Amino acid sequence: MERKALHKDGPIFSRIVVGAWRWNIAVETVAQLIHKALDMGMTTFDHADIYGDHSNEEIFGRVLKQDPGLRQKMEIVSKCGIKFPSAKRPESWVKHYDTSKKHIVWSAENSLKMLGTDRLDLLLIHRPDPLLDPEAVAEAFSLLRQSGKVLHFGVSNFTPSQFEMLQSYLSFPLVTNQLEISITHHSPLFDGHVDVLMKHRVAPMAWSPLGGGSLMDQHLEQIFSKAPAYQATPAQLSLAWLLRHPASIFPVIGTTKPERVAESAKATDIHLDVQDWFEMLKAVQGREMP
Amino acid sequence: MERKALHKDGPIFSRIVVGAWRWNIAVETVAQLIHKALDMGMTTFDHADIYGDHSNEEIFGRVLKQDPGLRQKMEIVSKCGIKFPSAKRPESWVKHYDTSKKHIVWSAENSLKMLGTDRLDLLLIHRPDPLLDPEAVAEAFSLLRQSGKVLHFGVSNFTPSQFEMLQSYLSFPLVTNQLEISITHHSPLFDGHVDVLMKHRVAPMAWSPLGGGSLMDQHLEQIFSKAPAYQATPAQLSLAWLLRHPASIFPVIGTTKPERVAESAKATDIHLDVQDWFEMLKAVQGREMP
Amino acid sequence: MERKALHKDGPIFSRIVVGAWRWNIAVETVAQLIHKALDMGMTTFDHADIYGDHSNEEIFGRVLKQDPGLRQKMEIVSKCGIKFPSAKRPESWVKHYDTSKKHIVWSAENSLKMLGTDRLDLLLIHRPDPLLDPEAVAEAFSLLRQSGKVLHFGVSNFTPSQFEMLQSYLSFPLVTNQLEISITHHSPLFDGHVDVLMKHRVAPMAWSPLGGGSLMDQHLEQIFSKAPAYQATPAQLSLAWLLRHPASIFPVIGTTKPERVAESAKATDIHLDVQDWFEMLKAVQGREMP
Repeated sequence: MERKALHKDGPIFSRIVVGAWRWNIAVETVAQLIHKALDMGMTTFDHADIYGDHSNEEIFGRVLKQDPGLRQKMEIVSKCGIKFPSAKRPESWVKHYDTSKKHIVWSAENSLKMLGTDRLDLLLIHRPDPLLDPEAVAEAFSLLRQSGKVLHFGVSNFTPSQFEMLQSYLSFPLVTNQLEISITHHSPLFDGHVDVLMKHRVAPMAWSPLGGGSLMDQHLEQIFSKAPAYQATPAQLSLAWLLRHPASIFPVIGTTKPERVAESAKATDIHLDVQDWFEMLKAVQGREMP
Repeated sequence: MERKALHKDGPIFSRIVVGAWRWNIAVETVAQLIHKALDMGMTTFDHADIYGDHSNEEIFGRVLKQDPGLRQKMEIVSKCGIKFPSAKRPESWVKHYDTSKKHIVWSAENSLKMLGTDRLDLLLIHRPDPLLDPEAVAEAFSLLRQSGKVLHFGVSNFTPSQFEMLQSYLSFPLVTNQLEISITHHSPLFDGHVDVLMKHRVAPMAWSPLGGGSLMDQHLEQIFSKAPAYQATPAQLSLAWLLRHPASIFPVIGTTKPERVAESAKATDIHLDVQDWFEMLKAVQGREMP
Repeated sequence: MERKALHKDGPIFSRIVVGAWRWNIAVETVAQLIHKALDMGMTTFDHADIYGDHSNEEIFGRVLKQDPGLRQKMEIVSKCGIKFPSAKRPESWVKHYDTSKKHIVWSAENSLKMLGTDRLDLLLIHRPDPLLDPEAVAEAFSLLRQSGKVLHFGVSNFTPSQFEMLQSYLSFPLVTNQLEISITHHSPLFDGHVDVLMKHRVAPMAWSPLGGGSLMDQHLEQIFSKAPAYQATPAQLSLAWLLRHPASIFPVIGTTKPERVAESAKATDIHLDVQDWFEMLKAVQGREMP
């Protein structure tokens, strides 16, 4: 599988990223998923402090401990900044965001501890915090960067304005904005979210790249009518549709089944014809381009 | 009360600004309001040429004339650019905007005459004029700046695009965009209006910071449930909610009662807990953050 | 008629541009329209590869061939990037966009061939292509520029984000964004589309400047109540309303009648009073400015 840089100064990720969002499962299954992904060339794993109610990093970390050579074969992304009421976080009594210097540094260091590693390849601010103090974020990022604990920084679910505002306070680039993008949720391709990343020469990551349950049955046939011609499944065609975009979108797949990991990997071999790309968009939108 | 710069090169204002919008009242009451505000450390007064159908600047000016030392203890903001049919402005037969060089200069000089002062600390374009010629505005601002008649310039009710467009024609910074912001009208915190000001390192001013009549009775209890814990009134908590934002929002209060001026001033002593901030937002939005 | 530069480095166009959109008509009529336009000082003609199902450039070219001196008296704009099913383009089976380097270069060269000229004064990307690769567009534009086949470049129907993204990849300016703007379709004046062009010091072109059929009969009387005072027709007043804007909008008129060409030209002699401008806007919006 192709590997590609999110920004000219890195990091270099596998074109399809494996999400650990749902990996609040048995350590053995996680080990199996990791190995299947690496076998397929999918070397990048996407975490967040809160996934699995703050459990998934630790489960993943147990696999890394069992096989110390594994860490060198992969890149790890994590996120911080969301707090919600949980038995594991008794100090929170309402869902809120915390992008204070203290919390960002603590959260990144805690992710390292949970994952049993000495570095994150990429740390993202999980959600745009209305109380985000860009100078505090800049200080936290700089500390983590100088100590080598986090190699690159980015954001998730930020608007173009929020991205450019925070970027203006940093002396190094935000290397991505991880957004919800799929053929059914294609608005970020048209409303400026992806444009601003292309302007800054950084690549988007796409969460929920298969569009969740929004691909309604009655549309499927029309959207994916070309699947047989590509010898592809609808899921593979959905990923190929994203991969065809010039912004270099990195889809983050979320599955707990090794066979789905393998299926996704094959999407990178599909080169969608431009007219098929537009026909799929027309089928989803119910109208052709103006 | 804290004093703070809107931009690194000034002006320095009191953290809460006193609005003269409703001060089409007896000179004695205005004098009382001014003295109460100054006593509380609120040194900045917000005017516009049109307030009180073009009367309020003159009423305020009478107080300044009675006590010549007063001007040195305060900063004065005024605005220009709106014209509407009025017995005092018989040349207008439809509400419109005028941001021509000639009108801006005339209006600022007329504000000085009405106020009985030799300088405005800040002059704002009151509304985004679709016929705004940025070169004309730049010339008017430069003239007023060189003559010392206006020390700083800004805008009001501008979109982010309008702000950046006009800024690109000026060799000095627009130091604020005075916007409607309150806990009930919080969209500017999320839609780019405030982001672009943070990107340009300037502070927003907030008009109608208590949200006018939009705080419906049935919500009040929920939004302000923490008021007793802070020994605060709902109005104070509303202001504290704005003051907690990292953009350094300067609320402009609008009241004709000296006791309300005093009440507002105390809001600067409240430091809202982050979770309380988010709980108030949740109560207004009727849902928690994503 | 006034001539004006879209950008300080050119091109210089007549203030009203003549659109060839509907000129899928007899060569003799096109010749008549061209001569009438030039007589009135309207020297700029707006084409696209696809107008008249890929026919209008060729029809226009026949007039140029009949009178070789004509080309020196005019500026020609064309567009590329839209493909749709047509007997003339059998390779397209779904409407789509193509802004590949290969297609842009081929399309511009084909426009030259159809028009029978050696240069386009301006080439526009007709629609924002979601698959637009800015590096490919930059290469195509550079090739066409170096060979002298196209003198200037721009876009059409782009959002502000799309405009700034593409501009960031070019070493020379996009000199326009041709947008739908009219008194009835005035949103581009308020939503950032025109602001971003003013920020970049380039002028908008306006397609459908008379608002198509959207000027409903019952409004006409109110919107154009001042027409007699200006000795103007509603169409002239509509154009004068656009011409009054400080962004230097270049309306592109679309007619097949020589007398309508002449009528339009006279709009440049009308200088709308600011209050009339706002009253017309109020009549269309059904409310006065805030």
